[in-house]
Amino acid sequence: MDPKVLIVMGSDSDWPVMRQAALTLKAFEVDFEAHVASAHRTPERALELSRRAHERGVEALIAGAGAAAHLPGVLAAVTPLPVIGVPIDATALRGVDALYAMAQMPSGVPVAVMALGGAKNAALLAVQILGTADKPLRDRFIQYKREMAAEVDAKHENLQAQVQDILRSSEG
Amino acid sequence: MDPKVLIVMGSDSDWPVMRQAALTLKAFEVDFEAHVASAHRTPERALELSRRAHERGVEALIAGAGAAAHLPGVLAAVTPLPVIGVPIDATALRGVDALYAMAQMPSGVPVAVMALGGAKNAALLAVQILGTADKPLRDRFIQYKREMAAEVDAKHENLQAQVQDILRSSEG
Amino acid sequence: MDPKVLIVMGSDSDWPVMRQAALTLKAFEVDFEAHVASAHRTPERALELSRRAHERGVEALIAGAGAAAHLPGVLAAVTPLPVIGVPIDATALRGVDALYAMAQMPSGVPVAVMALGGAKNAALLAVQILGTADKPLRDRFIQYKREMAAEVDAKHENLQAQVQDILRSSEG
Amino acid sequence: MDPKVLIVMGSDSDWPVMRQAALTLKAFEVDFEAHVASAHRTPERALELSRRAHERGVEALIAGAGAAAHLPGVLAAVTPLPVIGVPIDATALRGVDALYAMAQMPSGVPVAVMALGGAKNAALLAVQILGTADKPLRDRFIQYKREMAAEVDAKHENLQAQVQDILRSSEG
Amino acid sequence: MDPKVLIVMGSDSDWPVMRQAALTLKAFEVDFEAHVASAHRTPERALELSRRAHERGVEALIAGAGAAAHLPGVLAAVTPLPVIGVPIDATALRGVDALYAMAQMPSGVPVAVMALGGAKNAALLAVQILGTADKPLRDRFIQYKREMAAEVDAKHENLQAQVQDILRSSEG
Amino acid sequence: MDPKVLIVMGSDSDWPVMRQAALTLKAFEVDFEAHVASAHRTPERALELSRRAHERGVEALIAGAGAAAHLPGVLAAVTPLPVIGVPIDATALRGVDALYAMAQMPSGVPVAVMALGGAKNAALLAVQILGTADKPLRDRFIQYKREMAAEVDAKHENLQAQVQDILRSSEG
Amino acid sequence: MDPKVLIVMGSDSDWPVMRQAALTLKAFEVDFEAHVASAHRTPERALELSRRAHERGVEALIAGAGAAAHLPGVLAAVTPLPVIGVPIDATALRGVDALYAMAQMPSGVPVAVMALGGAKNAALLAVQILGTADKPLRDRFIQYKREMAAEVDAKHENLQAQVQDILRSSEG
Amino acid sequence: MDPKVLIVMGSDSDWPVMRQAALTLKAFEVDFEAHVASAHRTPERALELSRRAHERGVEALIAGAGAAAHLPGVLAAVTPLPVIGVPIDATALRGVDALYAMAQMPSGVPVAVMALGGAKNAALLAVQILGTADKPLRDRFIQYKREMAAEVDAKHENLQAQVQDILRSSEG
Repeated sequence: MDPKVLIVMGSDSDWPVMRQAALTLKAFEVDFEAHVASAHRTPERALELSRRAHERGVEALIAGAGAAAHLPGVLAAVTPLPVIGVPIDATALRGVDALYAMAQMPSGVPVAVMALGGAKNAALLAVQILGTADKPLRDRFIQYKREMAAEVDAKHENLQAQVQDILRSSEG
Repeated sequence: MDPKVLIVMGSDSDWPVMRQAALTLKAFEVDFEAHVASAHRTPERALELSRRAHERGVEALIAGAGAAAHLPGVLAAVTPLPVIGVPIDATALRGVDALYAMAQMPSGVPVAVMALGGAKNAALLAVQILGTADKPLRDRFIQYKREMAAEVDAKHENLQAQVQDILRSSEG
Repeated sequence: MDPKVLIVMGSDSDWPVMRQAALTLKAFEVDFEAHVASAHRTPERALELSRRAHERGVEALIAGAGAAAHLPGVLAAVTPLPVIGVPIDATALRGVDALYAMAQMPSGVPVAVMALGGAKNAALLAVQILGTADKPLRDRFIQYKREMAAEVDAKHENLQAQVQDILRSSEG
Repeated sequence: MDPKVLIVMGSDSDWPVMRQAALTLKAFEVDFEAHVASAHRTPERALELSRRAHERGVEALIAGAGAAAHLPGVLAAVTPLPVIGVPIDATALRGVDALYAMAQMPSGVPVAVMALGGAKNAALLAVQILGTADKPLRDRFIQYKREMAAEVDAKHENLQAQVQDILRSSEG
Repeated sequence: MDPKVLIVMGSDSDWPVMRQAALTLKAFEVDFEAHVASAHRTPERALELSRRAHERGVEALIAGAGAAAHLPGVLAAVTPLPVIGVPIDATALRGVDALYAMAQMPSGVPVAVMALGGAKNAALLAVQILGTADKPLRDRFIQYKREMAAEVDAKHENLQAQVQDILRSSEG
Repeated sequence: MDPKVLIVMGSDSDWPVMRQAALTLKAFEVDFEAHVASAHRTPERALELSRRAHERGVEALIAGAGAAAHLPGVLAAVTPLPVIGVPIDATALRGVDALYAMAQMPSGVPVAVMALGGAKNAALLAVQILGTADKPLRDRFIQYKREMAAEVDAKHENLQAQVQDILRSSEG
Repeated sequence: MDPKVLIVMGSDSDWPVMRQAALTLKAFEVDFEAHVASAHRTPERALELSRRAHERGVEALIAGAGAAAHLPGVLAAVTPLPVIGVPIDATALRGVDALYAMAQMPSGVPVAVMALGGAKNAALLAVQILGTADKPLRDRFIQYKREMAAEVDAKHENLQAQVQDILRSSEG
Repeated sequence: MDPKVLIVMGSDSDWPVMRQAALTLKAFEVDFEAHVASAHRTPERALELSRRAHERGVEALIAGAGAAAHLPGVLAAVTPLPVIGVPIDATALRGVDALYAMAQMPSGVPVAVMALGGAKNAALLAVQILGTADKPLRDRFIQYKREMAAEVDAKHENLQAQVQDILRSSEG
C-alpha cells in the first residue's frame, strides 16, 4: 500500500517520541511509512525521500528532531507537501533549541511546528490535512474530538470523589 | 464566493503582519476572508466563526495573535480543520510569549505554528494543504519554489559585484 | 451550599497541584467547587461554567493549567469576577510556557497570575478578595499571617542548634 | 474622600505606565491615591503605607515596579489586602526581571501579577475585586465588557475595506 | 563574641546551601551569626536585624534566597554595610528568578550577587571585605588561593593516569 | 595619590557606562584610577594590574565588560581584593551573556556582580567596603541614603499635581 | 586564483555582516569566494558547493545565517572541511534562534560557532586554521595580535584625559 | 611524542565529558595531551600552557568548561592556534551560562564553540583542522563520514521491525 504520510526522524533515539505519531495514524487507518534519515549524516537520502514523496502519493510529512533540529526544514526545502515538525527535548537546553530551530523558518519554506514532543498532535494535524480531500476521515476526526470531550467530562466526575475526601476529612 | 481559508486576528493592530497572508493567498488565487475576532474580548463570535467554518467549505484557518496568544488554540478547539498559528512580536517579551502560547498546545488539539511574524508562510502552508485536493494549486506552488530559487541565484550574481569592489579596493 | 470560589483545571493531572487550593479554602471555611474543564477539549462547558458563575454567588475563580495555559484567560473572557491563574510546570519548558501564556493577557481581560505551582497562594488571594466584603474572613487572614511569622521565628530558633554543631565541631 | 485603591510606584519614572491605572479607576469612579514609595530607598514609608491601608478603608493595592521589582511583595508582606503587581519593562532584560521578581512570590504572601506594563488591567482587576461587595460597580464592569466587544466588532467591519483594497488591486 | 558577619536566609530550607557559608567563615575564624528572617513573612524582624547590624560591629551581611528573592535587597535598604546575595535554585525556573531578582537592584542600593548556590563564595567575599581592615585575614586568603592552585595541580597529575589508560587500551 | 579603587574596562566603548563609577567615587572623595585592559587582548597587562593592586594600597577593583565578560573573573583570579563586576548590555543578547559570564563564577573565586549597567552601584559597594575600615566614609554613605530617601519623598509630592490633573480633567 | 575559503550566506541581506569576513580575509591576503546559497531555497546548489569545495583546494567554509540558521549544518553535512558558523541577529528573538540552531549540532558533524554577528572572528579562525599549514600566515596572525594589544594600550592612554576631566571638574 | 592537540579542562569533574575528545583523537591516531588548568585558580599555568603550545608543534587546543566558562577565551588570548570550546552543563542554568560565556567572544579573539557537551565534535573539528595539512587524516575523516551514514541506514532498517509490530498489533 502506498503511504499517505511519511514519519521521518534523525535517529532511532527519537522513536519513543515519534511512535505516538505512528500509533495515532494507525488508529485513524492512515497508511504511513517510518524512516530514519538524518539531515546531517545522510542528507542526500533525506532529500531524495522528500523530493519524491508527492510523486508516490504521499500527502504530508512528519519530521521529529532534537538539538539543532534541521530535519523538517531540509525536507520542506524540496517538497510541495506540508511538513509537520516535532521538536524533541533531547539536550540540556530542554528542547528550546529544537523549538527555535524548527519554528523560525524563513519566508517561503513553512514548517508546521508542534509542541515539544507533540508527535501525537503531528499525526492529528496530518489527519486534518488529509481530511481536506477525504471527508470520511474528517468525520472520524470530528468523532475523535467528541470522545476527547467525553473523557474530560468523565475526569470531572472522578474528581468529585477526591474533593469529597478533602471536605469530609475536615468534618472528622 | 465561498472562502477556502479564513484569516483571523485578535485585533486590527495585527493587520500589518497578517496582510502578508492575504496578499499571498490572493497571488495563489485562493479565496479567503479576513476577520477580527478576539479570544478574550469576543470569545463567542470567535468560536462561532470556527465552529461553522468547515460547513461553509473552508479548508484551513490562519490565526495571528501576540502576547498571551490564545486565538489559534481557541479556534482549534471547535473545528476539525487545520489551524495555522502566526505568533506576533507585540510585547516587551519580543514574541516569545506568543510563540510559547501557541506552540505548547495540549495533546488532541494541534496548532501548526509558524515563525514569529510568519504570515506569508502561513498562507503558503494553507496552499500546501489545499494542494492535497487541488493538484493545479500544488503545481503553482512547485512553480513558486522554482522562482524562489531563481531569485536566490540572481542575488548570488549581484553579490559578485560587491565582492569585486572589496578586492579591487585593495589593489589601489 | 452555594460555592464562593470555583477551582477549575484543564486536566485531572493538575489536581496534585490544585489540591493545595482546595485544602487552603477548606482551612478558611470558604465553600468551593472543583471542576475539570478544558479550554481546548471542552471549551463550551468551560465558558458556560464561567459565564454563569457570578449568578450563582461565586465571587472568584481559580484556574490552573500548564503548557499553552489558556484556561484562566478563557474563563476571564466571559465573567466579571476576578480570575486567578496558577501556571503549572508540566512540560520540558519548566512552566515558562504556562507563566507567559497566563501573564501576558491583553488589555481589558485581566488574570491575576500566581507563582509556578502557586495554588496555595491562589486560595489565599481568593480569601483576601472575599475579605473585602467579609471582615471576619479578613481577620482570619490577619491571624494566618501572624502564625506564619511565628513559624519563621521557630525555624530561626531551631537553626541555632545546627549552627552550634558547626561551631563546636571546630573546637574538637 | 477616603481612597478604595492605592496606586504605588517605586519611582516617578513609572508614572507614564501607572497613569493608565489612575485613568481607568477614575473612569469607573473608584476613589484612589497615588504614591511614590520605594521598597529599597524608603522601605519604612512603603511598609507604613501598606500596613495602615486596610484601616483607612482601602480594599486593594496596585504596585508597579521594574528591575528587581520588590515593591508589591514588600507591600503584600504587611497587609491583608489583595496586592496587584504591574511588572514594568525598565531594563535591558525587557521586563523579564520584573515579571519573575513579582510572580515567584513564596507561599503565604500572594501578589496578583499582571502583564508587563499592564496597569490598565491592574485597575480592572481592582474593579472586579471591589465588585465583590459593590454590585453596581460589577454591573458597570459587565457593561464595560460589552463595549469592548462592540469595539472589536467595529474593527472587524473596518478591516473589510482594507481587504477589499487588496482584492481589487489584483483586478486592475 | 560579637559577630563580624550575619548569614540570613528566608527559610530553613535554604540552610543546606547557606551552611557552606558558615563552614567557610569558621575555617577563616570569622565570627558570624545565622538567622532565619523572611522579607515577606517577617519583614519587620528582617529590617530590624539589618538596621542595627553595623552598630553591633557587623561588617558584612550574606543573604540567601530563592524564587522572588527579595531578602538581600530588603536588608540592603536599611544598612550601610555591604550585602552579599546568594541566589538559590528553588523553583521550576532553576534559579533564574532568584538571580534576576537579586542582580537587578536599582541605583543607590547595591547587592553583591554570587553564582546560583554560591554560598561559599559569599563567605570568601566577606573575608576579602574584612581583609580591607584586617591584613592577617587577607594573608590567610592569599594562602587559601595558593592551596586552591595546588589542588588543581594535583588534579592535573591524577588525570594523567586516566589518559594513560585510554592510550594503553588502544595498544592492546 | 595612591588609588583606593581601580576601575577597569575591556574597551573604551565601556566608558560611558563606567564613567558613572568614576563620578560616584569622586563624589565620595575616594581616590581611584581608570584603566582600559582587556582579558582577551592584553591578558598579561590585566593580570599584572590586578596582581600588584593590593601592594599599592588598592582595596577594591571594579571591572566592567560586555559579551563574554571575562574581565572581572580574570582580575579576581590573581588578587586577594574584592572584585566588583558590572555586566554591560553590549550585544544582541541584551547583556544576559555578560550577566551569566560574571555571575556564575566557580567556587573559590568570587566576583560581586551588579545589575546590568550598574556602574554607580559598583562604586557605592566599593564605598561600603572601604567603610569597613573608614568610619567617616561610612557616615557619608549613611548620609547619602538619607538624601536618596528625601528625593523619593520629593517625587511623591510632585506626583500629586499630576494626579490632581487627572482627577480635575473628569470634573470638566 | 583558486579560493582557500568560501564565504556562504543564505541571503544577500546577510552581506552587511558577512562583508567583515571578506574584508578580514583580504587584509590577510587569503583568497576567497562569496556565495549566496540557501539551505532552504536552493539546497541542491548549497550542497553541491560544499561537496566539491575540498577538491577545489578550499580549506575552510564560513557560513552566516539568521533565524532557523541551518546553512552551516547543511554545508558541514557533505564536506570534510572545517565549517565556521556565524549566527546573525535577524529576528525578534535577537539571534538566540540562530545561535542555538548552529551550536547544538549533533555528534559527528561539528560546526565552529562564532559570536552573534562574529563574521570578523570567523575570518580570523579561518586564518588560524590555514596557519596550520602556512607558517608565514600564522606569523601574520601573531603580528595582528600584537597590533590589537597596542590598540588597547593606546585606548588606555586616551582614557586618562577623560578621567582628568572628571577629576578637574570637581576642583572648580 | 609531541602532541598535535591539547585537551584542557578547568577541573577534573569535566573529564567524563572531555574523555570523549580523547577517545576520538586516539581513534584518529592524533597525538594529544590532557591538562587540568583553571582560568581562575591557576591562570598563570593556563596561560603558559597556551602561550608555548605552537612552539611545541601543537596545532589546535580543545578547552572544556562549565558555568562562567572563561577557559577557552583565556587560552585563545595568548595563542595563534585555533581554540575549540566545549560548553558543559554544570549548573542550574543547564549550560546556557557556559554557552554564552564561550560563544560571545569579542572581535579579534575567536573561540570555535561546539554544542553543550560536544567534546566528540571538538575532536572531530580538530581532525578537520589538522586535515588541512595532513591529507591522509582528511581521508580518514571522509571514511568516518561514510561509516556514520551507513550506521544511520542500519538504524533505518532496524526501525522497520518496530513499525511492523505496531501495524500487526492492529490486525489482531
